[in-house]
Amino acid sequence: MSESAPEDPELKRAVFARFDRPCPERTVFTTNTSSLIPSMFADATGRPDRFAALHFHLPVWSANVVDVMPHPGTAPEVTELLLAFAPRIGQIPIHLRKEHHGYAFNSMYEAMNREAIALAANRIALVEDVDRAWMGVTKMPVGPFGMLDDVGRGTVRKITSFWAQQLGDPQLEKNEKYLRGYVDTGRLGRKSGEGFYRYPEPAYRDPGFLEGRFPTS
Amino acid sequence: MSESAPEDPELKRAVFARFDRPCPERTVFTTNTSSLIPSMFADATGRPDRFAALHFHLPVWSANVVDVMPHPGTAPEVTELLLAFAPRIGQIPIHLRKEHHGYAFNSMYEAMNREAIALAANRIALVEDVDRAWMGVTKMPVGPFGMLDDVGRGTVRKITSFWAQQLGDPQLEKNEKYLRGYVDTGRLGRKSGEGFYRYPEPAYRDPGFLEGRFPTS
Repeated sequence: MSESAPEDPELKRAVFARFDRPCPERTVFTTNTSSLIPSMFADATGRPDRFAALHFHLPVWSANVVDVMPHPGTAPEVTELLLAFAPRIGQIPIHLRKEHHGYAFNSMYEAMNREAIALAANRIALVEDVDRAWMGVTKMPVGPFGMLDDVGRGTVRKITSFWAQQLGDPQLEKNEKYLRGYVDTGRLGRKSGEGFYRYPEPAYRDPGFLEGRFPTS
Repeated sequence: MSESAPEDPELKRAVFARFDRPCPERTVFTTNTSSLIPSMFADATGRPDRFAALHFHLPVWSANVVDVMPHPGTAPEVTELLLAFAPRIGQIPIHLRKEHHGYAFNSMYEAMNREAIALAANRIALVEDVDRAWMGVTKMPVGPFGMLDDVGRGTVRKITSFWAQQLGDPQLEKNEKYLRGYVDTGRLGRKSGEGFYRYPEPAYRDPGFLEGRFPTS
């Protein structure tokens, strides 16, 4: 659901600086960062008024939401241009009125994930039970751990570790340790064939899953 | 989604104590609390081994998930009985292996809500944009604010106020103040005809809502 990962602002600044000269003045620059904010690179672009964050979600064509997040120096017509551009590529534009590290959906998603992982890491509930609770109430076809398998454990662990450090949140540290157990045993998610579930036919797709008929580990 | 509200443990204790004598020994007592934990009243029931939390979600027949949360003194066969009972009334049982004030789904839901309300309270995004982001990514037919309108603003404000005090969380205090604005102007949610949306035809049901064609306030 999220492509967020610890990102390197210096690398982004260097790339933008390099593209400024060859590009015409009218060209709008955007960045798909999901944890950094555009004012961190605006001056490096050489065109701060024609620069904003344009943040996509994964999988990009089904989770077709894009955050449009200007920085204080973005020209209002550039924000309008990006809001109008999004639907032309099949995306739903979300206007962030202020810079915010968590963007829109990700703020909510990361908070939900922190609690989902905490339930399992603290042995309050099984992974499958957390997903069944989420799926049963929301009627979504997948729960938090099924989604995490799609993002990939390595990425999730890196994000969790990054925010654990940034926020000094002891629960996030426990969560990171819990996730590390999966990474260390090669259970990285769907791509590796196993994560919280085994692929290609994860238990949560089973018609009996919600009722609780599934093999528990 | 949640019927949680600040609850009175003393009242619950008194009620359980009163029912102990007239009920046969075999009767199992349960409690539908969603913020308190069963060990807080176990002794008052007179039958701590035949007592556990059985926590439903709203609307109860569609969000058909029930948390089964024993306390350390609950007999294992009573937990099994409750896990087996749930499907007989059309509910999906979720087994909480330890007592936890947030239960399963509610832990995740409250965390997601805190961020959703914070986005609006901090004027980072419009209520409608927060819901569009959530609905666009998850494909749920309703977003956090649409759901809050169903719970009712009074209840949500009480819960938020309760947890703001319990946790000393300054963002929850801001959220509570933001919600109070709606309560004070009578916009209590679906039941009152207006909340974040106007009823009976809320904007989020409009086919153009996701694309951003809706009247903004």
